[in-house]
Amino acid sequence: MAKKKDDKADKADKADKKKKKKAAKAKATDKQVKKAKKAKPAAKPAKAPNPVSSLAPSGGFPDLPVIRGASFAAVAAGVKYQGRRDVMLATLTPGSAVAGVFTRSSTRAAPVLDCQAKIGLDSTAGAAIIVNSGNANAFTGGAGLQSVARVTGALAELLNLPIERVFSSSTGVIGQPLPEEKIIAALGNLRDTLSETAITDAAAAIMTTDTFPKGAKAQVDLNGVTVSIAGIAKGSGMIAPDMATMLVYIFTDAAISQPLLQRMVSRQNETTFNAITVDSDTSTSDTVLVAATGAAGNVPISRSNSRDAKVFEAALHNVMLDLAHQVVRDGEGATKFVEINVTGADSAADARTVALSIANSPLVKTAIAGQDPNWGRIVMAVGKSGAKADRDLLTIRLGDILVAENGWVSPDYTEAAGAEYMKQQDLAISVDLGIGSGTATVWTCDLTHQYITINADYRS
Amino acid sequence: MAKKKDDKADKADKADKKKKKKAAKAKATDKQVKKAKKAKPAAKPAKAPNPVSSLAPSGGFPDLPVIRGASFAAVAAGVKYQGRRDVMLATLTPGSAVAGVFTRSSTRAAPVLDCQAKIGLDSTAGAAIIVNSGNANAFTGGAGLQSVARVTGALAELLNLPIERVFSSSTGVIGQPLPEEKIIAALGNLRDTLSETAITDAAAAIMTTDTFPKGAKAQVDLNGVTVSIAGIAKGSGMIAPDMATMLVYIFTDAAISQPLLQRMVSRQNETTFNAITVDSDTSTSDTVLVAATGAAGNVPISRSNSRDAKVFEAALHNVMLDLAHQVVRDGEGATKFVEINVTGADSAADARTVALSIANSPLVKTAIAGQDPNWGRIVMAVGKSGAKADRDLLTIRLGDILVAENGWVSPDYTEAAGAEYMKQQDLAISVDLGIGSGTATVWTCDLTHQYITINADYRS
Repeated sequence: MAKKKDDKADKADKADKKKKKKAAKAKATDKQVKKAKKAKPAAKPAKAPNPVSSLAPSGGFPDLPVIRGASFAAVAAGVKYQGRRDVMLATLTPGSAVAGVFTRSSTRAAPVLDCQAKIGLDSTAGAAIIVNSGNANAFTGGAGLQSVARVTGALAELLNLPIERVFSSSTGVIGQPLPEEKIIAALGNLRDTLSETAITDAAAAIMTTDTFPKGAKAQVDLNGVTVSIAGIAKGSGMIAPDMATMLVYIFTDAAISQPLLQRMVSRQNETTFNAITVDSDTSTSDTVLVAATGAAGNVPISRSNSRDAKVFEAALHNVMLDLAHQVVRDGEGATKFVEINVTGADSAADARTVALSIANSPLVKTAIAGQDPNWGRIVMAVGKSGAKADRDLLTIRLGDILVAENGWVSPDYTEAAGAEYMKQQDLAISVDLGIGSGTATVWTCDLTHQYITINADYRS
Repeated sequence: MAKKKDDKADKADKADKKKKKKAAKAKATDKQVKKAKKAKPAAKPAKAPNPVSSLAPSGGFPDLPVIRGASFAAVAAGVKYQGRRDVMLATLTPGSAVAGVFTRSSTRAAPVLDCQAKIGLDSTAGAAIIVNSGNANAFTGGAGLQSVARVTGALAELLNLPIERVFSSSTGVIGQPLPEEKIIAALGNLRDTLSETAITDAAAAIMTTDTFPKGAKAQVDLNGVTVSIAGIAKGSGMIAPDMATMLVYIFTDAAISQPLLQRMVSRQNETTFNAITVDSDTSTSDTVLVAATGAAGNVPISRSNSRDAKVFEAALHNVMLDLAHQVVRDGEGATKFVEINVTGADSAADARTVALSIANSPLVKTAIAGQDPNWGRIVMAVGKSGAKADRDLLTIRLGDILVAENGWVSPDYTEAAGAEYMKQQDLAISVDLGIGSGTATVWTCDLTHQYITINADYRS
């Protein structure tokens, strides 16, 4: 192959290039910035909206409670699309606690790196979160971090906040410089239109090609004080042109210490946002931020084993799970919502490995799309997972229907019953490995022609 | 969720059931066998053949050399399809060495387990390989192993061979009992039609819904003696209805010790069959068997550092790589053949992890299908892989085109050049991680509508 030869030539001059790299880096970046700025496309007219996913919640966007101490605004800044809101701002009263979890990608975007550096810093100042859609500010070199510094710096000045209390996210096309001047120009307008009730507009502004805005809420009573939680999310609709990304912002007026809030968010993330998969591809931008204003006036929560902490964490879990499910229900091309339960594994880690192996298997996902009770593919996915498994101890169920046990199809199982079950929109696949007590549940969707259509389209 | 509740009920009676399991097992299996036998479908008429993959080798099936000491036969036994050959037999002269590598799936099929138990046993007797298509004899409980014992036992008796020298494979539908009586009834006919030149018929008999039969060859001179290698393979066309499976049989008249042949096969497998992926789903039946008859008359090869060993191993590698590439070229729905080269990784293992992360990414594969030079998705796949990587040291090439370096798009890259390159049928993606000397190459195909059509079809 000709390629092999080129590769060797590559290697030879790569050794040489590596030496020069450090010196040349600043220069190369300058040249890259100049070129990229020149090539920057003009804002595009909004496309006709995609039809809303058939799996969207039937009630539409929920009526979210006001979160005392938090205000919202959304404006059209023309980052990429025209004629729609594409930048949102949330401001938080002094003393608010902010916690977050982020993508583990080693190529994560500049605003993610910036958020990670700021999260958990001790401060009683007010805070702000600014998010744009249309441009992910990912794989944009040193210039990307400079853009984050300029946007968050300008907002900090405008709102008189320390810069370490201004968090940001970006979602959309990657590898293109963030049009920071458009966002900075919109800041005044954002500040002037802040309102306690604009969270619905904020949910719409962070959409890229999601087919519906995503919101969830909870209210709990803490010793006679009503505490509210309201969350919004975007993902995993079609992203033009890049990877599925997920952004989540949850607000509560609960008073809670930042370290405890962070522990709760990290813990609940494992069984909510870290337990969903649409296509096994991990975004460079995934961000979950949770802000607690403390304005509800409850006795501040600071001990994780207190009753208030448990009540609040359970409510937080429900909001996170609701939003996570909505992301799957807006999965690219999805027509089925699938819960996968694995029990009887050697460990919880093994259970999760098996559950994700099933959830990410293209052959399982296409069978679900075809409404085919093809349990042989589930056996295959268990087998390839690498987790400890014994063919003869495996039990497989579709919903309540016992399909296979003792290493073979169940004598009572009929193909007709399986096929009838697969016609449902919401499905549950249960696998018991029969060797231990490890369990895991993950959620996914099917793999359809529409996924290919969405993602094989040439970038426009 | 109602499912949650059912799950808990399940767990309660599972603890109880587990105790009774061992005792009930034999009985359950009997009931299952009876039920399955009753439900066994009649042989089906052959479907219209699928159109041959656009990536098939232009020369058609190669003219394979005669392997002295090996004979072949293929007959129509009606295992599943009618009107086409579906069982093949290969016989090997006494003294032949047989080596093999197999799927690592923990739910592997009965004939795989049987082969693994037999491979490497010291014997100078003749040997035989029998393979059927149409039924994989996988997830068929204890009855599956009994079927293997009956088929290989009957063949051993007919050919007067020790049973441990009779290897078998099965490929096709899973979870259905192997119609062993049809295969046993065909054995006499197979024996009576053995010929040195029927390997082409054998290649056709092991196809399920592959779109073309796969063969490859090599001839080398070992100290004045010409040694030939001829191989056949099946996969990864549509399997009705189950997972993609790969079966490979390679024959040589070289004289070589079994332990050395096994070491060569295991080693070369890593860079050939273990370096291809169509859809990340691992079969329960994957089998590679290599048989050396010794009939060429060369000085037997027994030292791995001898010149003859090196010449032979290089030729064996070429045949294995050729067949591996043909499997990818017949990948389900494939329209592009893609080589992925990763260099500069912290280790060879990391390089392989990154290469497979790119090769298995649905977003990368759909971009390739759409002829979209969407290098952002390559960055994403590197980032999610878990391997050590630094965004700012990454270099990405499409063919010879430098796309990205220093953490951003290259100043000389143009989208037009990338788009033009992606129109080619054979593509190369190169990623240099810039941090070490680990390298890996894997091959894959794109993910197209046809893959969904093939796999979302209801089982018929």
